Amino acid sequence: MYEVEVKIKVPHAEIKKDLIECGAVFSGTEEQKDTYFNSHERDFSKTDEALRIRSVNGEGEITYKGKKIDTISKTRPEYNSPVDAGEMKEILLALGYFVSGAVNKRREIYTWNDFIIGFDSVEGLGEFVEVESNLRDAADKTEIKNEIDRIFEFLGKYGLSEKDSITDSYLEMVLKAEGLI
Amino acid sequence: MYEVEVKIKVPHAEIKKDLIECGAVFSGTEEQKDTYFNSHERDFSKTDEALRIRSVNGEGEITYKGKKIDTISKTRPEYNSPVDAGEMKEILLALGYFVSGAVNKRREIYTWNDFIIGFDSVEGLGEFVEVESNLRDAADKTEIKNEIDRIFEFLGKYGLSEKDSITDSYLEMVLKAEGLI
Repeated sequence: MYEVEVKIKVPHAEIKKDLIECGAVFSGTEEQKDTYFNSHERDFSKTDEALRIRSVNGEGEITYKGKKIDTISKTRPEYNSPVDAGEMKEILLALGYFVSGAVNKRREIYTWNDFIIGFDSVEGLGEFVEVESNLRDAADKTEIKNEIDRIFEFLGKYGLSEKDSITDSYLEMVLKAEGLI
Repeated sequence: MYEVEVKIKVPHAEIKKDLIECGAVFSGTEEQKDTYFNSHERDFSKTDEALRIRSVNGEGEITYKGKKIDTISKTRPEYNSPVDAGEMKEILLALGYFVSGAVNKRREIYTWNDFIIGFDSVEGLGEFVEVESNLRDAADKTEIKNEIDRIFEFLGKYGLSEKDSITDSYLEMVLKAEGLI
C-alpha cells in the first residue's frame, strides 16, 4: 500500500466541527507515546534508519525502519512487533542504545469518504491535522499527484493550501524546538 | 526467588512411569525454540550477557540477561518482553546482531511435591531431566545446599547421583556438539 499524507499546523476546532457536520465518522482516540533510539555505533539519522518504541493507549510496539532501497516509491524494510514498552526500553538501553527523542501526542481519528483525518495534539508543538489516503502499491507518479491534489482540494475549503503543509516529522520538529538539531 | 536446578542426561521412560505412579501431576508440554544472538561490537559470551528470543508453543518472548553483579547470589539484570518472534528476529538482524546458536526442545512438565520436573527432548542432544525447586530470595548457602541434597536424594531412587549432573547450558552443549566452542 502507498500512503499519501499531508500534515498542516492548524487549530482543530473549526475543521472538526465542519467535518462532523459533513458526516465524518469518529473512529477513536489514541494516546501515542513514541520513544526514538539511536546507536553510538552508527548514527541512525545518517544511515536513514529508525528504531522506535510506540505506546498506543498503553499497548507497546517496537518498529525498525531501514534505509530506503528505492527513492521513488520510498520502499524500505520495516519490522514491527508488539512489546512490553517498559521492558523493551530497558533491553535497548542495556544493549547500548540511547534515547534520541520522544514525541507524545493525542490523536483523534475521523474518516470521511476515503480520507483518514487525524487531529493531533502534540506535546510541546500544538495542534496539527494529518490527512491520509492509501493507494495501491503499484500507484504511479500521476496517481500520487492526483491524490495529493484531491487532499488539497479538501483542505482548500478551510483556507489551507500546499504552502501550509509540513514535511518535517514530529520528531524533527521536537528536536528543532529543543535546539537539538 | 532463588532457583535450585539439577540437570541430568538420562532416558525419560522409566523415571516418568515411576513418577506418575507416585502421584506426580502433569502440567503441560512446551515446544521451546530458543535463538541466541551475539554482537560484532562486543562478544556477549565474554561480557557475560545473553540476548535470546524464545518461542514457546508459538508465543514469542525476548530476554536480555546482563552481567552478574553479585557472584554469590548470581544477581543479574534481566528484562523480558512478549514479542512476535519472527519480526523481532528481523529487527535484531537488521540492527547488526547475528544468530550465535539455537536450542530447540520439547519439555513435558510434571510437579511432584515442591519439585518441578522437566522431561526435555533436546534436538541434537537427546533426553534430559531437570529438577527444579524454588527458595525464597533470602536463602542462605546452607539452605541451598540442603535443597540440592534433597533433589539428589530424590534422583538417587533412579540410581542417579551428583556426578551425573550437568552444569553446561543446552546452548553450550549444542555449540560444543557442533564444534563451535
